[in-house]
This record gives sequence, C-alpha cells and structure tokens, in this order.
Amino acid sequence: MDDDALLAAAARWPVARLATAAASGEIDLVPITFALEGSTLVTAVDHKPKRTRKLRRLENIAREPRVTVLVDRYDDDWASLWWVRLRGIAIVVSEGPGFTDAIAQLVEKYPRHYSQVPPEGPVIRVDITDVRVWQSS
Amino acid sequence: MDDDALLAAAARWPVARLATAAASGEIDLVPITFALEGSTLVTAVDHKPKRTRKLRRLENIAREPRVTVLVDRYDDDWASLWWVRLRGIAIVVSEGPGFTDAIAQLVEKYPRHYSQVPPEGPVIRVDITDVRVWQSS
Repeated sequence: MDDDALLAAAARWPVARLATAAASGEIDLVPITFALEGSTLVTAVDHKPKRTRKLRRLENIAREPRVTVLVDRYDDDWASLWWVRLRGIAIVVSEGPGFTDAIAQLVEKYPRHYSQVPPEGPVIRVDITDVRVWQSS
Repeated sequence: MDDDALLAAAARWPVARLATAAASGEIDLVPITFALEGSTLVTAVDHKPKRTRKLRRLENIAREPRVTVLVDRYDDDWASLWWVRLRGIAIVVSEGPGFTDAIAQLVEKYPRHYSQVPPEGPVIRVDITDVRVWQSS
C-alpha cells in the first residue's frame, strides 16, 4: 500500500489507542473508537461502563493537549503488518456544532453500535500535526 | 472472565502497545510483541525493518523508565471487549541471562515467527508495578 492507501485503511479501522500524559509523568493509554477525516480525528466518551465520567484522559488533555494516537493492524502473517501514528493537539468539546458534527461522524462510522445510542460525550478532537506510517516489507 | 482469566488471556494475546515518554513531552507509542510471566513483561527489538537501531523507545526508557503497556481485545461485538493496562519500570537489557531468558520466552510464544530468526534485541524488561483491567459486561 502507498501512504494514502494506508491512511485510508487506518481511517476505516475500528479501533485505535489514545495516549495522554499526566502531570505525574504517567501515561494514560486506552483503546478508542474514532473517526478520521482529513487532518482531524475525533473520539468520544461513550456509554460503555466507566467508573467515573471524570476520566483521566480528559484531565490530562486539559493540562497537556499534545496526544498520540496509534492505529495498527496485527496479523499472524507478519508480512501484512502496518501502523499509522498520529500526533496532534487535542481539545475537549462538550457542545455546539463541533460536538454534534463529531457525534454524527462516529454514528456514521459505527452504525451498529451508535445509531440507537449515540455517544454521550464529551468529544475529544485532535488536530493532527504529524503523521508517521510503517508497514512490513 | 474474572481478573485472573483476563490476565491469562492478555498473556496469550499476540500484540500489545508500548507507550514511553520523551523529554520533549511527546509520547512514543508502538505495537509490540511481548511475553508476560508473573509480574514481568519482556519485549525485544526484532528483525522487522527499522529506520535505525537507535530507537526512540530505548532513548525514552533510559531517561524515564516508567512505561505503560496496553493489551486489548477489539471485536465488533462490544459485549466482548476487554483491556489490561500494565504500568511498570522498564530497563533495557542487551546481554546476559536476563537477555537470553527473555529471548527464549519470546521464541516460545511466537514459534512461527521467531524460532528461525530470534529477535536480535535489545530486550526491554518491564517490572510491573500496577495492573488495571476492564471488560464490558
């Protein structure tokens, strides 16, 4: 795949991992659902059970907006591995057009899961500043 | 699954993601193969193509040994999701029994990929200090 095809594959991929940095130096690392359009990635806190709505990732972003997102394909055939790493500046969006647009993107990408019960949010929007891709062979 | 079964499933899982922190505040995030026994996780730089042997993750660990590893299962059936997040103190090991034992663990877990060409290393060993598990119920 060329880089454009790899980015398109990453945009279709159902899961990514979001890393954010805490003041303590600890890294928070969680799987996320996401939508990727152009140089913007959005993800949302959804209705899956959480211990609290006051999530570590949101606290971290408020302090340090530079985040890293990894989309990667694992397969037992190591000739078909790839990953796309996105760095960017995150903001938390809880209302307004930026919020509703992001929720709409997520519902469109995950109709089976979100069309009945859209994510409550808040939304995390990442303005991507750096893209690195890797693939085997 | 109870927590022990979840940890056992994570130990069998073929891929994880390793997050390390750079002095700049950037987070390096890469997929890794790994072996997990007790409270120790090992991973190694292998023979897959790298731009350089002087990898960012190794530089980061030398400066900041606190790392985060995420093992997670994605499935379109969101009732069967789980993740295990491991935090710990990493050291880079390039020789000696700690090195050869880690390589042996990796070859045992990935015989198809590593039995002919074991990872060259170096090895990253993580002494796990904190475990958090999550699963959809």
